[in-house]
Amino acid sequence: MARVSQEHLDARRRQILDGATLCFALNGFHATSMQDVLKSVNLSAGAVYRYFSGKEELIGAIVNEVLDDIRGVFESAGAESPPPPPDVLVGRVLSKILGMRPGLTHEGVSVFPRLMVQVWTETLRNDELSRVMREGYDGVRAAWVKIVEGFQAAGMMRADIPADDVARIMIATAQGFAAQQALFGEVRVPVKTLQNGLKALMSMGEATTQS
Amino acid sequence: MARVSQEHLDARRRQILDGATLCFALNGFHATSMQDVLKSVNLSAGAVYRYFSGKEELIGAIVNEVLDDIRGVFESAGAESPPPPPDVLVGRVLSKILGMRPGLTHEGVSVFPRLMVQVWTETLRNDELSRVMREGYDGVRAAWVKIVEGFQAAGMMRADIPADDVARIMIATAQGFAAQQALFGEVRVPVKTLQNGLKALMSMGEATTQS
Repeated sequence: MARVSQEHLDARRRQILDGATLCFALNGFHATSMQDVLKSVNLSAGAVYRYFSGKEELIGAIVNEVLDDIRGVFESAGAESPPPPPDVLVGRVLSKILGMRPGLTHEGVSVFPRLMVQVWTETLRNDELSRVMREGYDGVRAAWVKIVEGFQAAGMMRADIPADDVARIMIATAQGFAAQQALFGEVRVPVKTLQNGLKALMSMGEATTQS
Repeated sequence: MARVSQEHLDARRRQILDGATLCFALNGFHATSMQDVLKSVNLSAGAVYRYFSGKEELIGAIVNEVLDDIRGVFESAGAESPPPPPDVLVGRVLSKILGMRPGLTHEGVSVFPRLMVQVWTETLRNDELSRVMREGYDGVRAAWVKIVEGFQAAGMMRADIPADDVARIMIATAQGFAAQQALFGEVRVPVKTLQNGLKALMSMGEATTQS
């Protein structure tokens, strides 16, 4: 009996989080009212406030979840041994991001890239969420620095450039491409496009960069 | 007399835009109230509403200005003939972005990257602003495709990859790096870091990308 009840509570909490996440992804955390959320999840205020004390707590729970998801994507993509080259690695991150929360779609398209950009903005005004985000980024960067050092040790990449600079750029490429998918309604631009672009940059060699 | 008056009107309008822009960059468009804006510009509601009918009009004016600025940065960086290699080109974009609106600082640091991320979020919920952004992106991408075609024609880059894929990635790199500067409080990470990272990727050559 108690177990069923806990399952019910968990499912109801999930229902609220998913409905609110969709609202926030489409219209932003602050232009969305609690009324919008209640309408979307089709529950009374009383039912929702049993789980979340208010909008700020709901936002905090959702932002933490998204940051955790994204951190997991970057870390698992970088955990493979030996690590794939940058185009494959970054492509894998983007594929995973586009495949997250398959239930969260709008007009048949994943809203996760939009949600990611909304979360970025929210971390700008909340010190605690900003701290969580920065810790996640530091962790991912440290893991990706190891990968870059592997490229350099194997003679695949110039070794006279700080590995941290390269890790930052690889992460920026995934972030920028995901932002484009959110901003320009290009969620159907395939991951292959990102990988092609990186391959072409990688093909330039050193000679052309001396100007 | 009329001329002085117009100058005064323009200066007052500028004062409102700059004060509001700083508020919005730091706290977001929707978590900032008109009261916050009035306090920041130190003007009465009556004085501000003479220039802008309300918060939405103020937001629209600011977002349009920022999108215009960013488009100008990308276009002018790409206008040089012959075009510089990707690391120099993207580095130039970032330098210009960090140097925009020198008056808009918080604790001695440019708030422009934060403003850029806030503007992205705002375009997600406003069809008209989204259209302006998309047009700007299409224009920049078309200009950068020409540059990539130049690299390919000169034998500096693999020619079997669509130039559009490469243009998207170069733009994504600048966007992602600027987002990192906004999100992780890293506005003091030098542009050289971005350029180093790109140089290292470019040094990998084709052989390593075949896996």
